[in-house]
Amino acid sequence: MAESLDLILERTLDAPIDLVWRAYTDPEHLKHWFAPKPYEISECELDLRPGGIFRVRMIGPDGFDTGHGNASCVLEVIEGQKLSWTSALGPGYRPAEMGEGCESFPMTAIISLKDAGSGKTQYKAVALHKNTQDRDAHERMGFQEGWGTTARQLEELAKGLSVNA
Amino acid sequence: MAESLDLILERTLDAPIDLVWRAYTDPEHLKHWFAPKPYEISECELDLRPGGIFRVRMIGPDGFDTGHGNASCVLEVIEGQKLSWTSALGPGYRPAEMGEGCESFPMTAIISLKDAGSGKTQYKAVALHKNTQDRDAHERMGFQEGWGTTARQLEELAKGLSVNA
Repeated sequence: MAESLDLILERTLDAPIDLVWRAYTDPEHLKHWFAPKPYEISECELDLRPGGIFRVRMIGPDGFDTGHGNASCVLEVIEGQKLSWTSALGPGYRPAEMGEGCESFPMTAIISLKDAGSGKTQYKAVALHKNTQDRDAHERMGFQEGWGTTARQLEELAKGLSVNA
Repeated sequence: MAESLDLILERTLDAPIDLVWRAYTDPEHLKHWFAPKPYEISECELDLRPGGIFRVRMIGPDGFDTGHGNASCVLEVIEGQKLSWTSALGPGYRPAEMGEGCESFPMTAIISLKDAGSGKTQYKAVALHKNTQDRDAHERMGFQEGWGTTARQLEELAKGLSVNA
């Protein structure tokens, strides 16, 4: 049953796993790919340990702005392999106030990376919801398109790191 | 600011820290003290690792019954020292549906134990809320009395373990 409450995106990225991990976990890199363009991340604060902060501010040309607030909480960090966080909690595990738009329902994200050989990376992103209503709302907001676009942006950025490494 | 959203209970328990920890983390022991009598715990399921389940069913003589559901999620386990869990998430970090009564608002509990010498234990329980409304509701439900009573019950049970150890 739990499975049906998840939205899942899987891609093979044409970039080595260590660079994908770096692109995901360095706030300066994350800013450049985490929002599907033309949206962008204007602020990013990461403290990658259980209980740490995961906060981004997303803005858009249409005046869209998530604001400073609504920080999420990091849950799991397995170096180079796995990163989970949730918007149901804020930093220090405090239950979070829900906001508006994408932040109107709590969600847990579980990102897994696997070495796919030949300098490629298997990327899996799972969004966990509490009920079908939230899952459906997230799907209608364009989960597949949005997260698919950012996966491509992540791939491009990680490839660029490779060239300059 | 965050501090003001917390409810805190501190007690020095007349029982050694290893027995207090055992009384807290063994479901068969927890059943006997976790509900303020005459309420009782009829079911208890613990998987003490981050992402694991923390589920109790509480029943009362007045027909009170929390039911099977609304499992919480374990967040932190530092053997013999610290245990945190939250009702904002279920097992596997899935955002949780809120229920009724005590389960109508999300809460994170952080339990800390310290050796106070002479076979005593410093016990600190912090309940984290998302806003003052939830904190006040929890206080009105009798946080200090309820958690105070269970702290005494925990102490008694842990002392009993000492005798039989």
